[in-house]
Amino acid sequence: MLKPKFGFYFKNMAGNSFGELFKLTTFGESHGRALGGIIDGCPAGLELDLEKIQLDLNRRKPGQSAIVTQRKEPDSVEIYSGTFEGKTTGTPIGFAIHNTNQKSKDYSHIKDSYRPSHADYVYDQKYGFRDYRGGGRSSARETASRVVAGAIAKQLLSDVKFNAFVSQVGEIELEVPYNKLDFTKIESNPVRCPDPKTAADMEEYIRQIKKQGDTIGGVITGVIQNVPVGLGEPVFDKLHARLGAAMLSINAVKGFEYGSGFSGVLMKGSEHNDAFNSDGTTTTNRSGGVQGGISNGMDIYFKVAFKPVATVLQSYETINKEGEKITTQGKGRHDPCVVPRAVPIVEAMSALVLADFWLLSRGNKK
Amino acid sequence: MLKPKFGFYFKNMAGNSFGELFKLTTFGESHGRALGGIIDGCPAGLELDLEKIQLDLNRRKPGQSAIVTQRKEPDSVEIYSGTFEGKTTGTPIGFAIHNTNQKSKDYSHIKDSYRPSHADYVYDQKYGFRDYRGGGRSSARETASRVVAGAIAKQLLSDVKFNAFVSQVGEIELEVPYNKLDFTKIESNPVRCPDPKTAADMEEYIRQIKKQGDTIGGVITGVIQNVPVGLGEPVFDKLHARLGAAMLSINAVKGFEYGSGFSGVLMKGSEHNDAFNSDGTTTTNRSGGVQGGISNGMDIYFKVAFKPVATVLQSYETINKEGEKITTQGKGRHDPCVVPRAVPIVEAMSALVLADFWLLSRGNKK
Amino acid sequence: MLKPKFGFYFKNMAGNSFGELFKLTTFGESHGRALGGIIDGCPAGLELDLEKIQLDLNRRKPGQSAIVTQRKEPDSVEIYSGTFEGKTTGTPIGFAIHNTNQKSKDYSHIKDSYRPSHADYVYDQKYGFRDYRGGGRSSARETASRVVAGAIAKQLLSDVKFNAFVSQVGEIELEVPYNKLDFTKIESNPVRCPDPKTAADMEEYIRQIKKQGDTIGGVITGVIQNVPVGLGEPVFDKLHARLGAAMLSINAVKGFEYGSGFSGVLMKGSEHNDAFNSDGTTTTNRSGGVQGGISNGMDIYFKVAFKPVATVLQSYETINKEGEKITTQGKGRHDPCVVPRAVPIVEAMSALVLADFWLLSRGNKK
Amino acid sequence: MLKPKFGFYFKNMAGNSFGELFKLTTFGESHGRALGGIIDGCPAGLELDLEKIQLDLNRRKPGQSAIVTQRKEPDSVEIYSGTFEGKTTGTPIGFAIHNTNQKSKDYSHIKDSYRPSHADYVYDQKYGFRDYRGGGRSSARETASRVVAGAIAKQLLSDVKFNAFVSQVGEIELEVPYNKLDFTKIESNPVRCPDPKTAADMEEYIRQIKKQGDTIGGVITGVIQNVPVGLGEPVFDKLHARLGAAMLSINAVKGFEYGSGFSGVLMKGSEHNDAFNSDGTTTTNRSGGVQGGISNGMDIYFKVAFKPVATVLQSYETINKEGEKITTQGKGRHDPCVVPRAVPIVEAMSALVLADFWLLSRGNKK
Repeated sequence: MLKPKFGFYFKNMAGNSFGELFKLTTFGESHGRALGGIIDGCPAGLELDLEKIQLDLNRRKPGQSAIVTQRKEPDSVEIYSGTFEGKTTGTPIGFAIHNTNQKSKDYSHIKDSYRPSHADYVYDQKYGFRDYRGGGRSSARETASRVVAGAIAKQLLSDVKFNAFVSQVGEIELEVPYNKLDFTKIESNPVRCPDPKTAADMEEYIRQIKKQGDTIGGVITGVIQNVPVGLGEPVFDKLHARLGAAMLSINAVKGFEYGSGFSGVLMKGSEHNDAFNSDGTTTTNRSGGVQGGISNGMDIYFKVAFKPVATVLQSYETINKEGEKITTQGKGRHDPCVVPRAVPIVEAMSALVLADFWLLSRGNKK
Repeated sequence: MLKPKFGFYFKNMAGNSFGELFKLTTFGESHGRALGGIIDGCPAGLELDLEKIQLDLNRRKPGQSAIVTQRKEPDSVEIYSGTFEGKTTGTPIGFAIHNTNQKSKDYSHIKDSYRPSHADYVYDQKYGFRDYRGGGRSSARETASRVVAGAIAKQLLSDVKFNAFVSQVGEIELEVPYNKLDFTKIESNPVRCPDPKTAADMEEYIRQIKKQGDTIGGVITGVIQNVPVGLGEPVFDKLHARLGAAMLSINAVKGFEYGSGFSGVLMKGSEHNDAFNSDGTTTTNRSGGVQGGISNGMDIYFKVAFKPVATVLQSYETINKEGEKITTQGKGRHDPCVVPRAVPIVEAMSALVLADFWLLSRGNKK
Repeated sequence: MLKPKFGFYFKNMAGNSFGELFKLTTFGESHGRALGGIIDGCPAGLELDLEKIQLDLNRRKPGQSAIVTQRKEPDSVEIYSGTFEGKTTGTPIGFAIHNTNQKSKDYSHIKDSYRPSHADYVYDQKYGFRDYRGGGRSSARETASRVVAGAIAKQLLSDVKFNAFVSQVGEIELEVPYNKLDFTKIESNPVRCPDPKTAADMEEYIRQIKKQGDTIGGVITGVIQNVPVGLGEPVFDKLHARLGAAMLSINAVKGFEYGSGFSGVLMKGSEHNDAFNSDGTTTTNRSGGVQGGISNGMDIYFKVAFKPVATVLQSYETINKEGEKITTQGKGRHDPCVVPRAVPIVEAMSALVLADFWLLSRGNKK
Repeated sequence: MLKPKFGFYFKNMAGNSFGELFKLTTFGESHGRALGGIIDGCPAGLELDLEKIQLDLNRRKPGQSAIVTQRKEPDSVEIYSGTFEGKTTGTPIGFAIHNTNQKSKDYSHIKDSYRPSHADYVYDQKYGFRDYRGGGRSSARETASRVVAGAIAKQLLSDVKFNAFVSQVGEIELEVPYNKLDFTKIESNPVRCPDPKTAADMEEYIRQIKKQGDTIGGVITGVIQNVPVGLGEPVFDKLHARLGAAMLSINAVKGFEYGSGFSGVLMKGSEHNDAFNSDGTTTTNRSGGVQGGISNGMDIYFKVAFKPVATVLQSYETINKEGEKITTQGKGRHDPCVVPRAVPIVEAMSALVLADFWLLSRGNKK
């Protein structure tokens, strides 16, 4: 193996928890026995709708349409603790999703080489050791646990509306503003774009990309509505800073913006400022529902940029663990475009962020 | 005052610490007696160059050029603890910057009204109470404490190179890639853009904007070089997720992208992947120095989008605390464009992120 | 149900993690589907001996001798993640112990009433709701997860020796100092007292207590040897403060002392001080291996006081949920004295504390 | 200097924060420029009585009576932030106590040698470096910052009653149970024992010890009354576990027990259990106000054991930094018995623990 750049390995990992009072800790690798997590801090007395949790898992799972990976993973969740007689008890909710096809596959082509723009090389460098089966811990399969926790967070914050949808695939961009869209149409097509015409274009484009054995990037827009005024903890844990960190922690994400975002750079203050209505709402919403890191009650909206999936089904050059150049061939069943399956993940992370700030702000009293 | 939207106030704030092992906690309001902070976790034995700390503070401070706010604040830092005989002792470093002109000004126009796109309204809604002098805690003056801590983090990580510069002001964009730039020229002009021609254009544009009593947005590019392989703590505390959160916690920031960023969306996987050289470096660097949330030793580069400053020196409509519409006039000495002074803040937050991951990874042993 | 004392319920729980860099989070109730946990931060490359983990679980499990509860719980642990080819990978170790006899029992006598000196009442008051089966989350069954994690921590710190033993049962006290004892004899008797004569007396006494349907308290002495100099994080996270918190978090613990402990109160400084040898060791060790919150390399020794188990197999008066007085009868298979089974728990918590400080101090580099 | 036992130094310290939502971080060494801290999380709108803060500081400060150290330190606190117009704003409260006599003294006898049972040796071993003036960071002077924060926590929890008093000095023990004592008499004598007769005996004994140039240990009893039912976060952050950690983090503390404590070991379950009254209170209170880690509304009472102060004004043998034996003479103005001045510290830490659990449980809503 290539020598560690530091002369030694770091070896331990420390970042598998998210949130402070509604805290999710996850475990599990792509091809281990099971993955899952613990939610510490979910208030007692919440009637838990298990079907809704499974529904979100199904939206994330492989094999759901022709434009996503054709792997078969049932992704069915078992709740081990924290509920009694259908309600949460206030104690930690432990859950697991067992892997059913963990052994079958041949990973020898990954074992001894580093795939470009994957985490193979850095895992070996950091830990001196790696579970190479399907990417191990670096696989997006881990996000299944986030979807479970996010689905519970959504039920906790039943008044808040969480929506996410695909707003761009490669150069095909949905140009309708989010507030002119019908969110009930998001699930009406496999791309998860609420505009049928654009969705059809995107779907066709992804099919072409797939035929080429290639992949393509995309953008997901997230919208959080009916948010109470006052959530967010300046100066470091500003609502949008935590939201940004949440999104950037999702596999393949390269960028995050909220409200006016990067296009706000082009504006003058006199154009950008949101004028107040008498009730404290604003006539425009370039602030994106957050001022000074605290929610102001307007819609929170944001964009998340995803790079193209690194695994291409083509021949490519790379290096093996000894640093020798080799030519190899991408294979397996992979997503040509990650955004359709990432929509429920963006929603889940949004809900985790909001649930945590909610509890930080008010305990759980109604 | 407008009634709290929730029926009550949240009242407490909880997010004034950043980092886990190199942990900064800050205090202080724009016009309080002093602001400052505590760095907990700085290793012992570091020879501290106090002049370098003050130098970074001077780069952030008001009044340094014609295109920034003309307020006078000496911003001189006092170190209270954690050093002995010129070296750090491993114990917490407490420091303060005393405010010298805290009382003079008249804030009655702010006290009873909410400035658009400022944090006035949400602070009142969250805490039921607000220090209205100069924005109180929501003022960017708080970032002076970050610059102090960042300057110490830079000294700890003396092998790592932290640079930031202004790459866009309004529509004027620096199109030269960062690795063709001469970073020693960043400080050669008041805009802090390393390309003299673009800098001159930006400066002239900011002067015009200022004359209009208006403000304009901008972009800062950050570059971190000579980073060890292996920093970052997946799956939530990925290096770029923490870096993004750090940047988004800076006042006025609306977006963050690293590596290929939002433009990576347009690319195919076969174009976007970074091919390996034999030593583990890559021929291209669309990954932006981070793979799977862990540094790969290549340059880390990123962009941070700043909205235009909300305070415009023009007449505008807004509401007072009773929700009545009023017309008021912006006044005072404010920045027409925030990015020139934000450059050292971006560098400081970069250094805080790296120092923390460094200690998380290896303790302090050399 | 008695009205909440505050006018409302608190509802959420937030304290199910222990440690910062070797962090254990546990889940599970006495009679839920499973209990278990996640260890976040165990370094990569540790060869994991699963038999040793099960061995410690067996020392804690019910039914192992005539003087402990006769319940049957196999307590067999499944590791779900974080290991590959027999070694830890540096990623989170998720594990579960499935409950095999979760349904059978009749808990109607607990459901509607509050057992004295149990957590029934406070759980109802805090959460407005309670899993009453076998104490739910407040059951000492949760400590099985700690034993699993502690067994892994022991393997990580293979040079450090962790021992605990029963030094008192009711008034029967082992008066031999710990350093005159043969720790290999701890497991030679069901009481886990290394002095055979005292062990026999204790065992006989526990049998009598059991015959009376009563219970009795006890003391466990913990000894940690071969500890590196320098572990502990003043001023709040002193080694002995964290150790004390760890012990006090074990069910039924009422007190903790280390080194000279409460008897140190009686001494003069001139008697109590530990004189130095030339190599930095000390001639006496009243400090108990810790000075100023930092390990000094001498043996760390401490005592943990356990109250008598609250469940007595006798008739007693108490109140039901409406606050009415009722007479009821204790039943079931309970421990007459908790200390024999708590010995591995004390060891486990010791190992968790040391592993965390070890990683806090030095990362994982050898 | 003696070689580090590990082959290297750990160097960094990481434990200077206490609490999660009412979080105190402290800085400062015995003879640095200033010590102080930041309270992050104090709710907005609290009218702050600065005199009460100073009053508690005065109870802790040197020179207040003939039986404590005669050093002169005014210990006057400056509040830098987090208040406006006499009320807290919800933002961090930064404060400092400037050292007035930091330079004068000669510490050459400490600089090159290790005082027995002090932290000198372990600080050098951990950090490779030490501020030797007056013990540096390991000095109990740091607790002044805790007293400031505790005084604010007491004002936040104005309904809760915090009392602490000296219940033992050497062999002189106050045998009256706490609920038969008149707490208003605690401040009526320099020992801070509410029983005048015992106080006189203790005072006389301390005078004798002082004359001998020696020191003596003691016990402080803490009592927290009028506590809401439901505070505490099992399974790790049990109320008494956090309280124990708080007390054990105070300089010179060797033991902690609550409720029946170590004497509970001697009791049978049938004797130890607290029977319920109809309203959920209990007829006895061996539980010490905490069941299963959660407050039950009864008085919380506990004992804290302090060892004798290590600095004796006698001649003693020790080693220097090269490990050579030397004979030296204790000098300076030190406390013959630490407990009278530690009473406000025990109260302060109690209040910090309760304030944190209060906010964890209910946010700040009334």
